[in-house]
Amino acid sequence: MQTDNLLKQISFIKEIDKLKYILRKTKLFNSDRNENDAEHSWHLAMMTIILAEHSNKPINILKVLKMVLIHDIVEIDAGDTFLYETTKSHTNTEQELIAARRIFGLLPKEQADDFIAIWQEFEDGVTDDAKFAKSMDRLEPLLQNTSNNGGTWAEFNVPYEKVYEKKKAIKEGSTSIWEYAENLINESVEKGILKKND
Amino acid sequence: MQTDNLLKQISFIKEIDKLKYILRKTKLFNSDRNENDAEHSWHLAMMTIILAEHSNKPINILKVLKMVLIHDIVEIDAGDTFLYETTKSHTNTEQELIAARRIFGLLPKEQADDFIAIWQEFEDGVTDDAKFAKSMDRLEPLLQNTSNNGGTWAEFNVPYEKVYEKKKAIKEGSTSIWEYAENLINESVEKGILKKND
Repeated sequence: MQTDNLLKQISFIKEIDKLKYILRKTKLFNSDRNENDAEHSWHLAMMTIILAEHSNKPINILKVLKMVLIHDIVEIDAGDTFLYETTKSHTNTEQELIAARRIFGLLPKEQADDFIAIWQEFEDGVTDDAKFAKSMDRLEPLLQNTSNNGGTWAEFNVPYEKVYEKKKAIKEGSTSIWEYAENLINESVEKGILKKND
Repeated sequence: MQTDNLLKQISFIKEIDKLKYILRKTKLFNSDRNENDAEHSWHLAMMTIILAEHSNKPINILKVLKMVLIHDIVEIDAGDTFLYETTKSHTNTEQELIAARRIFGLLPKEQADDFIAIWQEFEDGVTDDAKFAKSMDRLEPLLQNTSNNGGTWAEFNVPYEKVYEKKKAIKEGSTSIWEYAENLINESVEKGILKKND
């Protein structure tokens, strides 16, 4: 049974290598190279450990780490959707659920069920753990864009109003991080790297 | 105090983005692109969660996750050292300790001290947590090389004896994973992608 589990686990470990090929729209800090999903997931995991003390509510750090480490794995099949994409839903599309079942389904059943449930909890964004995980996911590209002279905001003409609307989810996870993030957004408008709608 | 902490934490979060530029010798699975340290660290974190049940001894998964997520951060200053490099030590060089103090030192003192201690525990490789973390670090490139027709073994003429000597550390973390890994090494010799010394 243990050997049987191990072989399934190894095949999953090989499969998820493909996350390193999924490029996000955002660029690395001070760079013009796109970030990939594996790098992004590692960075969110580091941020979770470091910033946990700022969470509004007590969180289960191990659970949040699992969320941020696996949250983009479905993109191996479903592809990355840009946060400001308007024609496509970002959460819980049928395509993503099929991807979750296929990819996590490579694991032994108990682990597969656990991962699908954790991924679903993140997507739903209702629990305190999911809210904090989402706030990490919103914060990283904000830091990148402000380090990259506007980054994707400038590149794809995303106005202040849309950015503010999407980023305010950070407040659900941490009011103190949101205070910092809101300042960054306002400073970006003052610097002219983020434009308000006319 | 909380704001002061947050500013330090953000500066650390920006600094460690540089880990994405540190290239390892090993290539991605089925690819000729080198893996970077951030991708590698994410993969070890996933492996830790998935393979924890195979550990010889009970482990603190959160602690092991911290180890594998941060274990290469010192390479931002100290650079990556190839596992089979013979002229340079791999663990606890003076240069790495200086790097740890500078980079983790960007964090609030309590966090900095905690991270340096966890990094040191990993490097020392004595505790059960560190042994399991090290076994993950040894397993990933073994899976990559066997998927890449010998990978770095072929590229840098690393013989079976050296590979076996380095990889047997996996046994310290997990005898069942070592059984699997030993088979992989032996199969690699049979396939001719790993050569024995004459």
